[in-house]
Amino acid sequence: MTDTAENLTRTLAALQARLGDRVTESHSQREHHSHDESWHEPRLPDAVCYPKDIDEVAAILSTCNENRVPVVPFGTGTGMEGGTVAVHGGICIDVSRMDQIVAVHTDDLTCTVQAGVTRKQLNSYLRDTGLYFPIDPGADASLGGMAATRASGTNAVRYGTMRENVLSLKAVLPDGSVVSTGRRARKSAAGYDLTRLLVGSEGTLGIIVELTLRLHGRPEAVSAARVCFEEVEGATQTTMATMQAGVPIARIELLDAAQMDAINRYSRTAYPAKPTLFLEFHGSPAAVREQAETVGEIAADWGGAEFQWTADEQERREMWQARHDAAYAAMALKPGCKAYATDVCVPISRLAECIQATQEDAARYPELTTMLTGHVGDGNFHYVFLIDADEPAQYEQVQELSARLVERALDMDGTCTGEHAIGLGKRKYLESEFGPDAVDLMRTIKRAVDPNEIMNPGKLLPPTSG
Amino acid sequence: MTDTAENLTRTLAALQARLGDRVTESHSQREHHSHDESWHEPRLPDAVCYPKDIDEVAAILSTCNENRVPVVPFGTGTGMEGGTVAVHGGICIDVSRMDQIVAVHTDDLTCTVQAGVTRKQLNSYLRDTGLYFPIDPGADASLGGMAATRASGTNAVRYGTMRENVLSLKAVLPDGSVVSTGRRARKSAAGYDLTRLLVGSEGTLGIIVELTLRLHGRPEAVSAARVCFEEVEGATQTTMATMQAGVPIARIELLDAAQMDAINRYSRTAYPAKPTLFLEFHGSPAAVREQAETVGEIAADWGGAEFQWTADEQERREMWQARHDAAYAAMALKPGCKAYATDVCVPISRLAECIQATQEDAARYPELTTMLTGHVGDGNFHYVFLIDADEPAQYEQVQELSARLVERALDMDGTCTGEHAIGLGKRKYLESEFGPDAVDLMRTIKRAVDPNEIMNPGKLLPPTSG
Repeated sequence: MTDTAENLTRTLAALQARLGDRVTESHSQREHHSHDESWHEPRLPDAVCYPKDIDEVAAILSTCNENRVPVVPFGTGTGMEGGTVAVHGGICIDVSRMDQIVAVHTDDLTCTVQAGVTRKQLNSYLRDTGLYFPIDPGADASLGGMAATRASGTNAVRYGTMRENVLSLKAVLPDGSVVSTGRRARKSAAGYDLTRLLVGSEGTLGIIVELTLRLHGRPEAVSAARVCFEEVEGATQTTMATMQAGVPIARIELLDAAQMDAINRYSRTAYPAKPTLFLEFHGSPAAVREQAETVGEIAADWGGAEFQWTADEQERREMWQARHDAAYAAMALKPGCKAYATDVCVPISRLAECIQATQEDAARYPELTTMLTGHVGDGNFHYVFLIDADEPAQYEQVQELSARLVERALDMDGTCTGEHAIGLGKRKYLESEFGPDAVDLMRTIKRAVDPNEIMNPGKLLPPTSG
Repeated sequence: MTDTAENLTRTLAALQARLGDRVTESHSQREHHSHDESWHEPRLPDAVCYPKDIDEVAAILSTCNENRVPVVPFGTGTGMEGGTVAVHGGICIDVSRMDQIVAVHTDDLTCTVQAGVTRKQLNSYLRDTGLYFPIDPGADASLGGMAATRASGTNAVRYGTMRENVLSLKAVLPDGSVVSTGRRARKSAAGYDLTRLLVGSEGTLGIIVELTLRLHGRPEAVSAARVCFEEVEGATQTTMATMQAGVPIARIELLDAAQMDAINRYSRTAYPAKPTLFLEFHGSPAAVREQAETVGEIAADWGGAEFQWTADEQERREMWQARHDAAYAAMALKPGCKAYATDVCVPISRLAECIQATQEDAARYPELTTMLTGHVGDGNFHYVFLIDADEPAQYEQVQELSARLVERALDMDGTCTGEHAIGLGKRKYLESEFGPDAVDLMRTIKRAVDPNEIMNPGKLLPPTSG
């Protein structure tokens, strides 16, 4: 990577000529764009720019490409694996001003948005259409960022991830060319699947600037339920049996006792501080009742108690707000600490075993504060470890625990990351997960598309040895 | 492409040393592997080989790559766009002896199969598990071929296409390396989506040798229905309204009067020779009844008559057998003719309009025998034109009609191919559909992965000008 001061100066001059004061070297802006919500060490970009349209993104990229200056795309900075940290400096491209909803086709259940539109903004806009976009990673992330990291969250067990819900997109490549990856038809057998190649590419091939998304009809009825267990295993076994029974559950979220306790403190709720499943059901009123009954019976078989069922919207909203605030609740337990979140995902049949073994492993470090949440219907769960900044030994312990957890998940035919992406922290696992030949193929693609290695360098692909 | 006699001789000698009599230059074998089920002109490969495992495929590919000899992968030869025609000669790799079901994980709703396993073979094997693989392109195609062409068919409206149902795969690249594209977890945010890059790549990047598939629980209840209309428009409007109402219909197939008449002659059925929808509903007994009632009411609004509902399995099977035999029924009308099948797919809101305009266009050629079938819930439909081999003018007419149909579909934000893939016949539309920059990106990937251009040359990508 060439990143000489001269090239940077030339690049900044060209960008300022084009974007005016929408290019900034202000320290506070650079600081704001130096990190995401993860534990990764911040690194400041050299400048931040705020393009307003696709042409401006294309101009920025071709200028940076000519000058071999790294670019780092930035949505809302709510990533969990350091994807927006400017580890090689360069230009941060903040797409937040590309926030237009380009079109909504209610009859086709699709919409087209600019990359900076957030999921909540989109759903507010859709409020009167009877449609919504269900993918919900917790944070109010930009849809461009969600696509770039192949995000998912609580509803993915029923509606899929960004992989299934981005119908097509526009992306700017390093040379400034703009590719459209497809049409609005529900399916197509035409050409290489550039949509899916770019979804999850973490800004290392191109910058996603526009997306056409699948929308879903708001379910006729929605109900929620909560059930708690004496041990985590009751909850994981209930989850496995629910999925194996084919219940089309919309959300099935696990929280362990420590997490429930943290939530009670943070959200001033009074849930039992026990391993708990938060559930949601979508469908016709009869279907929703039937699903809840089925899961209630399965939970009872596994020792579930206090099965609380509700169709009340207020109660349901409170519950999901508490779930979404789980990470903040965890961090509030130890102000100033850093939260280190793991993200493995295993085949559903191995869920209980993987969590059980990890619990036992974590129990060997009683000095660590540890919490568990999970989108368990997908086999995806997060152990969150709170690291005291003054205790470097804790960081080492957490790294060890995390490495063993990833190894355990891979041994079970799982993945090192269900939804947070590779970013900075998981690069070392890519080859264990895919094998050297598949990683070589990824590198071949990367080299062909981004020969100057300007696109979010240092992310996704591990460094080449030698 | 270099394809000298000397290189070919050397390649064949090496392959014979490795595969023995599983390499053949017999004319009948070459002839059998020179075509698919489409109208495209057959072209014989120079030899056919029958690898039994992944190592043998790797050996074949690396030998062919060293010698710059083209390879053409072959499943069951049931393709619809000339994908298996050896337009540049070379070695046909028939994967039919790679027919092992490697593993079934009923608890995870996944299975792993070799590429030569056919969909019917898999479903027979799964019979006692309560699970099945729903993707059904009509023909008993190999799962490797279905993945390579991103196939779908009647059930895709509910269960998705091969894109959504291949969880991961193994493929051999031109240099003989074997890539594994992922794990068995339901979702992953790790690395480039090599699975989706290879699904739909039509053998132009690598040869798919093994697939891990999503399975689905057999629905508790299945029912079918049939409803006919005076005009095609009643059927298309019923389809649009059904999809927009969010009915989770499992199959919704349109057949026009000419096609129904052909079916009655071929399958000895006595259906009314009118535009007809064949429908199928999956779910609980109550849900299935509810869905059928909803669609029955919508159909009545659009002039649907004789709504015939059945939960009888025999009756249902007969109906779907007749549907699957529709193409053969069409061809039987004019023995010796060639069937030219179009395959556009449009956003559902444009379905009625696209079909209406195409009907009017086709009506200008009364001498042509024309039939319409469609997976209309996806916006995908096939006009089939029967071309008399003795009437070259008919071929010209059909080419014109087809070109205008594709243009019409693209104008409606649709695709030139919903499920048959690009193959030979749609290459000329690729740039109109994606634009030059996206096609350039496809070429960049192709060149990087297959620098010697040995992988199914002449398919998918249009020739470069100059």
